[in-house]
Amino acid sequence: MQSPIQTYLENLHGRIAGLDDGALASYIPELTKADPAWFGICLVTLDGVAYSVGDFSRQFTIQSISKPFVYATALADRGRDFVLSKVGVEPSGDAFNSISLNPQTGAPLNPMINAGAIATASLVAGDTPEAQWQRIESSMSTFVGRDLSVDESVYRSESETGFRNRAIAWMLKNFGIIDGEPMASLENYFRQCSVLVDCRDLAYMAATLANGGVHPLTGKRALPAEHVERVLSVMATCGMYDYAGSWLYEVGMPAKSGVGGGIIAVLPGRFGIGIFSPRLDEKGNSVRGIEVCKQLSRDFHMHVFSHAGHPAMALGRVYTGADAPSRRQPGAEMRACLNAQAHRIKYLSLHGFLAVDGIEYVIRRMREMAPDTHSFILDMHQVAGISESAARLLNQARRQFARDDIAVVFSRIHERPAIIEPLRKSAGPDDHGYLSFEDNDLAVEWCENRLYGGAAHYADRLGSLAESPLFAGVPAELMAQVEAVTGTASFAAGDAILVTGQAGDGRIFFIESGQVSILVPLQNGGHQRIASLGPGMNFGEMVLLGQTTRSASVLADTEVKCWILDTENLDRVAAEAPQLKIALLENLARDMASKLRRATQWISALA
Amino acid sequence: MQSPIQTYLENLHGRIAGLDDGALASYIPELTKADPAWFGICLVTLDGVAYSVGDFSRQFTIQSISKPFVYATALADRGRDFVLSKVGVEPSGDAFNSISLNPQTGAPLNPMINAGAIATASLVAGDTPEAQWQRIESSMSTFVGRDLSVDESVYRSESETGFRNRAIAWMLKNFGIIDGEPMASLENYFRQCSVLVDCRDLAYMAATLANGGVHPLTGKRALPAEHVERVLSVMATCGMYDYAGSWLYEVGMPAKSGVGGGIIAVLPGRFGIGIFSPRLDEKGNSVRGIEVCKQLSRDFHMHVFSHAGHPAMALGRVYTGADAPSRRQPGAEMRACLNAQAHRIKYLSLHGFLAVDGIEYVIRRMREMAPDTHSFILDMHQVAGISESAARLLNQARRQFARDDIAVVFSRIHERPAIIEPLRKSAGPDDHGYLSFEDNDLAVEWCENRLYGGAAHYADRLGSLAESPLFAGVPAELMAQVEAVTGTASFAAGDAILVTGQAGDGRIFFIESGQVSILVPLQNGGHQRIASLGPGMNFGEMVLLGQTTRSASVLADTEVKCWILDTENLDRVAAEAPQLKIALLENLARDMASKLRRATQWISALA
Repeated sequence: MQSPIQTYLENLHGRIAGLDDGALASYIPELTKADPAWFGICLVTLDGVAYSVGDFSRQFTIQSISKPFVYATALADRGRDFVLSKVGVEPSGDAFNSISLNPQTGAPLNPMINAGAIATASLVAGDTPEAQWQRIESSMSTFVGRDLSVDESVYRSESETGFRNRAIAWMLKNFGIIDGEPMASLENYFRQCSVLVDCRDLAYMAATLANGGVHPLTGKRALPAEHVERVLSVMATCGMYDYAGSWLYEVGMPAKSGVGGGIIAVLPGRFGIGIFSPRLDEKGNSVRGIEVCKQLSRDFHMHVFSHAGHPAMALGRVYTGADAPSRRQPGAEMRACLNAQAHRIKYLSLHGFLAVDGIEYVIRRMREMAPDTHSFILDMHQVAGISESAARLLNQARRQFARDDIAVVFSRIHERPAIIEPLRKSAGPDDHGYLSFEDNDLAVEWCENRLYGGAAHYADRLGSLAESPLFAGVPAELMAQVEAVTGTASFAAGDAILVTGQAGDGRIFFIESGQVSILVPLQNGGHQRIASLGPGMNFGEMVLLGQTTRSASVLADTEVKCWILDTENLDRVAAEAPQLKIALLENLARDMASKLRRATQWISALA
Repeated sequence: MQSPIQTYLENLHGRIAGLDDGALASYIPELTKADPAWFGICLVTLDGVAYSVGDFSRQFTIQSISKPFVYATALADRGRDFVLSKVGVEPSGDAFNSISLNPQTGAPLNPMINAGAIATASLVAGDTPEAQWQRIESSMSTFVGRDLSVDESVYRSESETGFRNRAIAWMLKNFGIIDGEPMASLENYFRQCSVLVDCRDLAYMAATLANGGVHPLTGKRALPAEHVERVLSVMATCGMYDYAGSWLYEVGMPAKSGVGGGIIAVLPGRFGIGIFSPRLDEKGNSVRGIEVCKQLSRDFHMHVFSHAGHPAMALGRVYTGADAPSRRQPGAEMRACLNAQAHRIKYLSLHGFLAVDGIEYVIRRMREMAPDTHSFILDMHQVAGISESAARLLNQARRQFARDDIAVVFSRIHERPAIIEPLRKSAGPDDHGYLSFEDNDLAVEWCENRLYGGAAHYADRLGSLAESPLFAGVPAELMAQVEAVTGTASFAAGDAILVTGQAGDGRIFFIESGQVSILVPLQNGGHQRIASLGPGMNFGEMVLLGQTTRSASVLADTEVKCWILDTENLDRVAAEAPQLKIALLENLARDMASKLRRATQWISALA
């Protein structure tokens, strides 16, 4: 089945390919060599998938589309304030080659007109013009995700005919906007315009901006996050020459065009788009490129101001420790405490990218739940990341809840810097940090212990085998016969007592002291704990139902002492006294019925 | 615990209240009566919660903040094309009271300057100026969410001193921009500027725009969705008078200020903000209001171009029909089919607001899974809504999958117009529509039937009680004794056979023919099906374990014939033959062990 996105783009390409308005750029001879029929479209998702149609691998010179990326580089190298002191951010309302300098300061009105772009090229880091060029080339390559080269003949052509730009550069030198040698900066500017790209490259450059400055495939950061919004703002107000207002009104994406026939458009947080078609309108924008942007925006609601959020989206399922208890089987006393109190442990599954609006909603819901809450577990499994401002609010809320003796702990943030870093950075200096657990089970176990008032303690040891719940209701004289055929064993912490897949040997284990974990193997090779058991509990009892292979592994968490009863011995006693077998089976079935009830409740809470 | 958002706003208010720059508006005497110390901030979430500090209920005149809302009204009444023919959308770069008409057409450059706003007031629906005023007032009231009134003394003062605006209105009449009587339109403009609001009202107006045109509390639509992006675009490029570029660069929210001291700012899909402080800078913007916007934007990353998305966020858990089968207990033949095939039923939990980027990701993942998929269940429980363009792509994908014999069905979209309407609207004319189910259980049951090749059929009837799995292993002569004490009963479709909470009467039911559902009561008064049973299955068997109260209700789905065995009679037989009791308990425990294994797998898939 072909993706409907691909189908859409092919249809769009077919429709717009018929549009024959506009003409090739003629101001340098090299550009007139293009075939006016060339036409490519590429759309890249934020996880780096490219949908491409038409002449998407045809190379052309990037021209003015280089401007926002060199501006980005200058911001990264010199910082917002310094760059703003040299180049403004106001739309000029004039043509791309207007001089448009601020009458007071001589600063170009914005970095998208030639004057501003030439000034910007002089601002990137580097002690010499050659070093500055290396910096421009490597920065643009990071945005694209591959090494770039320059079309030398276009470059020479630009340099040989750029008289007006030479005038502009000397004017900038006159006003002190360019510090160094203006003709060297101008050559770098000519070179940056002559970089060869195809429209897939453009789409990846756009997607890198849409993705907060990180290339969606290489994962390399091309620009510090703080500058991305600035670059996009300048593109939105000054990117499409003299009709910024209608562009935002009709298309609604920050964009930039070049006289080589390219256009990039950015839908922040969603898509990057690159288009190539060398027929230009009288303003120097690709005619088909503009039409593609208009139709994409209209057909896919790709407008930066399109409403696509609701704060409640940040919060998925909410359920309690009564619905989903820890896998540990607590002793009777703790079980009674949890039966009465475990609903005061609240799980909240957070979802998506958490910005301030989502976190505000989550904190609001937590405050509503607080009167009936002892601990919150924030399950971050489905969280893609958290903004630093949202993390700061969440840290503040955590500390305020702590003052009311309500714990807020995290689950499943292990090795996830997109969550851990903002939480760490936004914690105040006197914040002793947060608790986090590798999974919900460990988190809820901690909360259960806290509810119970300290670490859960099982009865230290079980007095006798007769006290095991599996023997409830068995008369004493019969019990004595069972005990007579029962052995004992000890295991050190870490010992594997049973192993999944092992042939069953008929032994049932009753824990006298210590703790064991029941583990099932996972597909990824790891293990998942499905229960922890303490004194008075039993394992391996499925042999009573004829099970011949162990279905789970049992590991000693501590030193463990067990009674071990062999079913052959049990059956020998039961042959004379069938009520023994009946009592055991009844107790076993009752235990499973209660586990099944709890599992059903758990499933309801999760689904 | 106080919300950290409230705490933040109180601190922000305290910090900025010290800012004493700027002066009261003086162009009409009424405005000079304000107290320069007044200062209120209000932030409203998209689910309508307001965080307010300072003088948030102090009333003032809305002034130019009325302009985007009357422009919105004109768009709703006259459509985009007609309105664009009368008023442009380009920033003027000039002061708010400049005339700035297009030299060719006489159209004001944009609706945020006075000339554009006066022209806009003349465009709203209404046969008379009075009817037009009613329209303006009622539209603004819908944005605010309450009835508004006019400050008559400010209105008179504006009208008596507005000589320049009279000149503008006649100029617009001269160019044919105003059709009717220009002085009457001008009076409506003066009245709209004199509407009384407080900064909470402004925040709700902003939140209505942020919420796609629907007031977050009243739920009333104030503006068709298609026009919301247009209004916000005009605010973004022309809202803050002559520094559109820096506003977007530094603050990044569409905004509008008024000389009464108000400012609104909109963060689409996230927040609405209203601020009131009557000290103005030389451009007529509230000094503190601007500072609040700057700091909010910086501290909370409230920039429209802030990156806060990832397409993968649209897709939550993915699991299969093997993990989470229907509650129905299938017959042996179907069970074998499902054991081999149920993994080819794929559940996808979608999440959040589904726009094109999210749906592209979902469809891409579906295409990857397709080779091993027979049916997709799209669980829409956590979906807030879907855009029409995303719905169109999803409908296209559904039909393409259908051609490959892969079904795509929806779960949990019942009575949810934010999902149903876009799906319906975007279905092609020859699309016969989609299947949807009230819950996942019904959806997976349908998929299981489809996998099995038609409706599931249980064995028509069970031949004899001895064939019941609960009696597996019981010798024939003993079985004959049991059958001798077993009765029969018939129930009509719809009969309640057992009722939750009913005292147990010791009866165990074995289905001979027909189907029953096991239901547990929900907190909301409804019932949830936890299983459906057919011939050969039994219910009520928990009395074997001493249960004395029925824990679930059993309803006959069809005409049902049962064998009924009383435990007293059973025990009488078993007293002589304990192996009967042992076999029953073993069979019961084995059945529960297998259900428990499946439940554990289900929980793992869901968590």
